[in-house]
Amino acid sequence: MDSRGHSNGRELETKEMDIRSLSSSRNNTQCIHKVGVPPKQNLFKEFKARVKETFFADDPLRTFKDQPKSQKLVLGIQVIFPIFEWGRSYNLTKFRGDIIAGLTIASLCIPQDIGYAKLANLAPQYGLYSSFVPPLVYALMGSSRDIAIGPVAVVSLLLGTLLQKEIDYHTHPEEYLRLAFTATFFAGITQATLGILRLGFLIDFLSHAAIVGFMGGAAITIALQQLKGFLGIQKFTKKTDIISVMRSVFEAAHHGWNWQTIVIGVAFLCFLLLAKYIGKKNKNLFWVPAIAPLISVILSTFFVYITHVDQKGVAIVKHIEKGINPSSVKQIYFTGDNLLKGFRIGAVAGMIALTEAIAIGRTFATMKDYQLDGNKEMVALGTMNVIGSMTSCYVATGSFSRSAVNYMSGCQTAVSNIVMSCVVFLTLEFITPLFKYTPNAILAVIIISAVINLIDIQAAILLWKIDKFDFVACLGAFFGVIFASVEIGLLIAVSISFAKILLQVTRPRVAVLGKIPRTTVYRNTQQYPEATRVPGILIVRVDSAIYFSNSNYIKERILRWLADEEEQKKKAYSTKTQFLIVEMSPVTDIDTSGIHALEELYRNLQKRDIQLVLANPGPVVIDKLHASNLANLIGENHIFLTVAEAVSSCSPKLVEEA
Amino acid sequence: MDSRGHSNGRELETKEMDIRSLSSSRNNTQCIHKVGVPPKQNLFKEFKARVKETFFADDPLRTFKDQPKSQKLVLGIQVIFPIFEWGRSYNLTKFRGDIIAGLTIASLCIPQDIGYAKLANLAPQYGLYSSFVPPLVYALMGSSRDIAIGPVAVVSLLLGTLLQKEIDYHTHPEEYLRLAFTATFFAGITQATLGILRLGFLIDFLSHAAIVGFMGGAAITIALQQLKGFLGIQKFTKKTDIISVMRSVFEAAHHGWNWQTIVIGVAFLCFLLLAKYIGKKNKNLFWVPAIAPLISVILSTFFVYITHVDQKGVAIVKHIEKGINPSSVKQIYFTGDNLLKGFRIGAVAGMIALTEAIAIGRTFATMKDYQLDGNKEMVALGTMNVIGSMTSCYVATGSFSRSAVNYMSGCQTAVSNIVMSCVVFLTLEFITPLFKYTPNAILAVIIISAVINLIDIQAAILLWKIDKFDFVACLGAFFGVIFASVEIGLLIAVSISFAKILLQVTRPRVAVLGKIPRTTVYRNTQQYPEATRVPGILIVRVDSAIYFSNSNYIKERILRWLADEEEQKKKAYSTKTQFLIVEMSPVTDIDTSGIHALEELYRNLQKRDIQLVLANPGPVVIDKLHASNLANLIGENHIFLTVAEAVSSCSPKLVEEA
Repeated sequence: MDSRGHSNGRELETKEMDIRSLSSSRNNTQCIHKVGVPPKQNLFKEFKARVKETFFADDPLRTFKDQPKSQKLVLGIQVIFPIFEWGRSYNLTKFRGDIIAGLTIASLCIPQDIGYAKLANLAPQYGLYSSFVPPLVYALMGSSRDIAIGPVAVVSLLLGTLLQKEIDYHTHPEEYLRLAFTATFFAGITQATLGILRLGFLIDFLSHAAIVGFMGGAAITIALQQLKGFLGIQKFTKKTDIISVMRSVFEAAHHGWNWQTIVIGVAFLCFLLLAKYIGKKNKNLFWVPAIAPLISVILSTFFVYITHVDQKGVAIVKHIEKGINPSSVKQIYFTGDNLLKGFRIGAVAGMIALTEAIAIGRTFATMKDYQLDGNKEMVALGTMNVIGSMTSCYVATGSFSRSAVNYMSGCQTAVSNIVMSCVVFLTLEFITPLFKYTPNAILAVIIISAVINLIDIQAAILLWKIDKFDFVACLGAFFGVIFASVEIGLLIAVSISFAKILLQVTRPRVAVLGKIPRTTVYRNTQQYPEATRVPGILIVRVDSAIYFSNSNYIKERILRWLADEEEQKKKAYSTKTQFLIVEMSPVTDIDTSGIHALEELYRNLQKRDIQLVLANPGPVVIDKLHASNLANLIGENHIFLTVAEAVSSCSPKLVEEA
Repeated sequence: MDSRGHSNGRELETKEMDIRSLSSSRNNTQCIHKVGVPPKQNLFKEFKARVKETFFADDPLRTFKDQPKSQKLVLGIQVIFPIFEWGRSYNLTKFRGDIIAGLTIASLCIPQDIGYAKLANLAPQYGLYSSFVPPLVYALMGSSRDIAIGPVAVVSLLLGTLLQKEIDYHTHPEEYLRLAFTATFFAGITQATLGILRLGFLIDFLSHAAIVGFMGGAAITIALQQLKGFLGIQKFTKKTDIISVMRSVFEAAHHGWNWQTIVIGVAFLCFLLLAKYIGKKNKNLFWVPAIAPLISVILSTFFVYITHVDQKGVAIVKHIEKGINPSSVKQIYFTGDNLLKGFRIGAVAGMIALTEAIAIGRTFATMKDYQLDGNKEMVALGTMNVIGSMTSCYVATGSFSRSAVNYMSGCQTAVSNIVMSCVVFLTLEFITPLFKYTPNAILAVIIISAVINLIDIQAAILLWKIDKFDFVACLGAFFGVIFASVEIGLLIAVSISFAKILLQVTRPRVAVLGKIPRTTVYRNTQQYPEATRVPGILIVRVDSAIYFSNSNYIKERILRWLADEEEQKKKAYSTKTQFLIVEMSPVTDIDTSGIHALEELYRNLQKRDIQLVLANPGPVVIDKLHASNLANLIGENHIFLTVAEAVSSCSPKLVEEA
């Protein structure tokens, strides 16, 4: 590109070119240009370029170029610990923003953490632990300025479901906890490995549509789980599908519901929803819904403490371990069967956690217009979870709701996470005993009001409007989660996403082109009904790379267009088709099967006295046409730069029939 | 299309159109055309069209259109039993061709069948059984005129390996045989089901490259297995990888090789290879290699009989059960664990058998220029194997080598299969005892000389020349088969094939376009170095549908081109980029993630004062742009029919800098 950098003039226009002038049928004179064959590249170079484009598409080493060694070391440290980069320009104004944001998300995260730990079938302190260490690690290594780190609802539910399937937390709490740490460890390893191997693009395979459905389903599943705390039910199913849960709820209806619990629950749910509504109506009051959960906790705890309703069956938190995270290195399973189980669970939970964190990171990076390196983020999140697993934390990631609050409270850097972490530290050290009388119903209510945000009906409607297939993927994931389980929903989502890609590759569109009046432009006759077909010439465009998975279909589809055309012709007594022009612009690549299919097409057409003509094959395609000698078979003079040139060259050769 | 069938004039050209004339920068005047929005289709219709294109791409019901009911019944029977279609025009001339071809392939198939049955660890008669019933069924239902049905080497090896992994044929011969019939039954069910559900395109997912490698590897593995018979080794490994086999061979070197066997083997191998060479040199002598195997069998059997070398350690066939196929319905496992095993093995073997048969069918159909309905073929092959499994046959399919001989001997219809079947019937009824003294070495030699053809070095070289990635897939399958096992090789082949599709979808090319001098054509500057860039305007082309799997990449890649451009500009002090034109011609589809990515790109560009302009979005894309309201956001006046029009509209608006 360097040599063409200063190409602002038309000086190249006078360059000698291989031009064969031919008189065209309609226009006065036109130049026929040769299709360019890109310069033959060194095999190794080509391979290197391909690898670079696949794994280093964002050119992460760009800043390292042409720098002295010492500078490279500094840059290297800054790459791994971005805090050294942004830390140097940190100032008091930024700190003011961060401290307000940090305090706000801390007030939101403390009650949520306790509730989310329950979703993962863990004691409440593990939720708080996970909001203490991971945010600190992320602040050092992460590059997003807005993300709020900690346990999140969906990952907690997923982890809880997967762990419960292996070990029952009622009968074997010790082993359950150990497996949870093992899974967290491997979630971190998975995340970091994906980042280091630059395989970050793998998370793109979970499509937006699938995520919308999955999140919506998970939100409903989580909300349903909260009915236990909300209604004060003692015996509750361990399954998560809607049918089991509803059966559990109605079976408990006669004797298992506790009216005092329900009253507390309903009252505070109204309070939280009102706060949410106020926050939505007036963007300046965003802090109202943010601190409402903490206020609910304080008020309800105080209420239970003075009224002693806990003796009337209102379930309370009872006990939260005091003090900061103990070490859990020795609790991780590094051998045996549980290692494998932990790895499997961790890999799934880690991927979902990544998907959520990267989506959040990208959203806010776009809003504030800064770059985010997905692979670097993965390394940061992975390291954070590995360290977390050794300090009694379970899988932490970026939280949608808290990150939004963080952003709106005016956070400037990851320092807001450090502030939050400090508040959680103080809570763990001093305040946990105060949570003793907090009713479980409040935690349930807080979770319900938090996960409601995950149900994005607007997005689903947009999916329906834009792409029906995406909508089906969304519905599939949604119903999979609520009627089967989180894993099944996930599996459905991924399968549908893949099926879509494969379908497009297997059955690409093949369109018939016509000439748009008063131009030399040829376009799809379905899209442009005014486009006219050229008699005696059939022009088709193949809308995909020609690969083994579609080469047969494309060949047969083209022949079918031809058959249709012939049938049409027979009725109208018009000129027999003598040229078949294949517009190759959208054909970005062709493989050996594709070359074979083209060759078969050519031979088949020859038998019918129809000449195959190619228009505008791309660099890769023309290269392979030459390598396979097919270009010679078809004839160089039957390969044109544009459809217009192909038509103007073919038209005079048409033989009129009697 | 009906309304445009007679579009041989330019009468449409005078049609009223929405044209906004704008003076262009270089040409005198040019029309700016609106991008067509295809007429809104009924959702159900669209869905129906999509389903039809996916599953009924070949329009199989075309002939049924506008026919009376009775005629439809006749046509229906003819569809299921094509023999009623071609049988009506059958005559003596055709029969003469068929009988010669039938006799030739019979002489080739009998010794092969006995050998192939050994590959599947079955007694020799099962090979002959499988050449008796299946060809008859196929003759009734199949539509290929050239395929020769029977057991084939690769499927026999695959079946043998898979079965042996479940049940040992030495210790449990009875159960082994039963599982073989069960697998055959489910192979047939799988094949027929794929055909009935019109999922035939699934076999296209095994790419040509993968098949070349897989076949080559299987051929070498099969040849190596023959060393047992060829060298007269008694104790031989049951594994199929090259390392185990070679160790087995060399361990037996000191005492296990039998020199008499080797002499017979070498002599007849030379004879067969010579016959092959003659057949290759002179196409008229194709029958020499075709009957050479039978001659070898006769000569060697006679030789052993008179010299009594079988008492000196030359292994002989000893016993082939006399009489035609006994029923085996009761031997198929319809319950229990073995049902599942049989299903799994059958599904794999059935798919491979299908791939081989369809590839052969298509090849010869193209050569003789007739249509072959893949899905119908699958139903025929499936029914044939289901019936086969009930009559003591194992998986049969089309054989490469015998089909080629069939074609060259001048076969006209599937009657040649019936002739072959009759000869096999006579063999089973009368001649089997004569095979008693046939040395195993001869069978080994016949198999070796048959599978040599499967090693297609020419094809591998072509793969290397045309597509390096295909070559890697080929090598992967090849080495997987010879160093691990048939299944591993198959798995590698399928994985690499899929990886290729996904890679293309994940990392599509994004090219920068320039104007080809003296035209209004814009092309990839890498392919056309003479193409000049337009100052102040960056033109990029996205070479793929924009899906969730690549939307982020495409957005970031475009922004990277822009960053490169800006850097370039800074050095050259040229005009700042003010327009980014995205050529959308190759973008065949876009999903919600893609729409989001475009929207983010638009917003990002806005912040830098760069206008996003789209050129030639296709019908699906423009539809979705409108549905998502993105078309309005970008502005209808920034969406053009061609890049040339976009440029000529943008150029006058460029603001020159000081």
